[in-house]
Amino acid sequence: MDKLYVIKIGGNIIDDEQKLSLFLKDFAQIEGHKILVHGGGKLATKMAAQLDIEQQMIDGRRVTDAETLKVVTMVYAGLINKKIVAQLQANNCNAIGLTGADGNLIKAHKRNHPTIDYGFVGDVDSGQLLVDNWQIFLSNKLTPIIAPITHDGKGNLLNTNADTIAQEIAKLLSTIYDVKLIYCFEKSGVLLDVNDDNSAIPLLTKQYYQELKTPFEGTWAPRIFAGMLPKLDNAFAAINSGVSKVIIGKAEELQQLITGEKGTTIINQ
Amino acid sequence: MDKLYVIKIGGNIIDDEQKLSLFLKDFAQIEGHKILVHGGGKLATKMAAQLDIEQQMIDGRRVTDAETLKVVTMVYAGLINKKIVAQLQANNCNAIGLTGADGNLIKAHKRNHPTIDYGFVGDVDSGQLLVDNWQIFLSNKLTPIIAPITHDGKGNLLNTNADTIAQEIAKLLSTIYDVKLIYCFEKSGVLLDVNDDNSAIPLLTKQYYQELKTPFEGTWAPRIFAGMLPKLDNAFAAINSGVSKVIIGKAEELQQLITGEKGTTIINQ
Repeated sequence: MDKLYVIKIGGNIIDDEQKLSLFLKDFAQIEGHKILVHGGGKLATKMAAQLDIEQQMIDGRRVTDAETLKVVTMVYAGLINKKIVAQLQANNCNAIGLTGADGNLIKAHKRNHPTIDYGFVGDVDSGQLLVDNWQIFLSNKLTPIIAPITHDGKGNLLNTNADTIAQEIAKLLSTIYDVKLIYCFEKSGVLLDVNDDNSAIPLLTKQYYQELKTPFEGTWAPRIFAGMLPKLDNAFAAINSGVSKVIIGKAEELQQLITGEKGTTIINQ
Repeated sequence: MDKLYVIKIGGNIIDDEQKLSLFLKDFAQIEGHKILVHGGGKLATKMAAQLDIEQQMIDGRRVTDAETLKVVTMVYAGLINKKIVAQLQANNCNAIGLTGADGNLIKAHKRNHPTIDYGFVGDVDSGQLLVDNWQIFLSNKLTPIIAPITHDGKGNLLNTNADTIAQEIAKLLSTIYDVKLIYCFEKSGVLLDVNDDNSAIPLLTKQYYQELKTPFEGTWAPRIFAGMLPKLDNAFAAINSGVSKVIIGKAEELQQLITGEKGTTIINQ
């Protein structure tokens, strides 16, 4: 099986021109097949504020109304996506910027929730993703750069979580590639001590994860930062669905994440 | 040779939700290979005003400074492009929204002008366009939807005239396709009387064009609206470069433009 890297970057890199530029240089140098999924950073929030579009929150979750959808489409699929593509082209990486609507790559449906209307927020229809649609690009040595926008096939664009998109792509393509899924975030990996950036766990197995989730004797607190648990549950779900490795760490250390020198590697053991 | 339609739509359709939606239904029904090039309409100007970005004009030409480039990238490559793609997908047309940076489709350079700095305005490097880069999409039955943004290969996006982009694509692909280039605008074709929308010339040959350009006896005015002359010069340049037909007319009459019932058809005779 050919190798494929699916790499997700978030706001901390996107909002920092210099860091982004260095990251893209490293990314361009990865040999073989690769896909980049990017989030939106603070630009969309800033743009919405400049355009006087009020951000509606329900129970701490952002609602994507029609005006907010326009803003995220402009900022994610336009500004950020094309900036990344142009820079990668300058680094001799034949990048192509896409949303889930382009080439019908990622079908989704409006989120169903019993009490909250999230507006134009899309949950991916995993069963409707087609390997062939992705192969058009990968087999032609194009590098897809994916903005976190999907579509419902009825003409609506939808705002979709970038972590989820990366995971869905990784799962789908693990049927024909040896897929490594890399989540870049602001920490150096899964930390044993959330206050110590040098405490990243190099290798995380299923059994070790169970141990870490078990609270210390006499406390309710798991041994790793509770905020990491959903990310890790997702990582193990990806592993269980055929992804060969999930790696979590800093975008600034991309090369070392790939070699295993840095970050946390999660494997199916 | 397989047929290929390269169709350019402008602001009058893009700014009108209902007209755009009807046009896209018609466009989706064209059988075989097709490429859509869209302009920006008034949305970018509106957005720049909302964001308090002053539009700089020199000698009546808009200058694309760094902030304006961000706006046109957001609006053209994000908002308009993805809206078109999502609607075409709903009409069973496997559309893919692209700029000239994506897949290195359209290389350009910053405009050189002895006295005016147009900023991030790009003139297409015709000699550097590659048929193979387009064939990846066309041979896989994808329909490229092109936003009028190009790149210089050094990491810069550039704002490029959509009419020119349509013409360059048509010329390039006429080496392997029977290309028909359709320019949609607000008039029903090349009018003999600019005030009479029923006066469209059905067929325009080189010889007839020369006659029409000749002023009436005793006047300086050519027999067709002077504003059309640059468009027509471009059309004949395309014809001379291998494009089989150029058709000019209304987006609302797309089907009849294709059959020849409406609009002005320009041929190499």
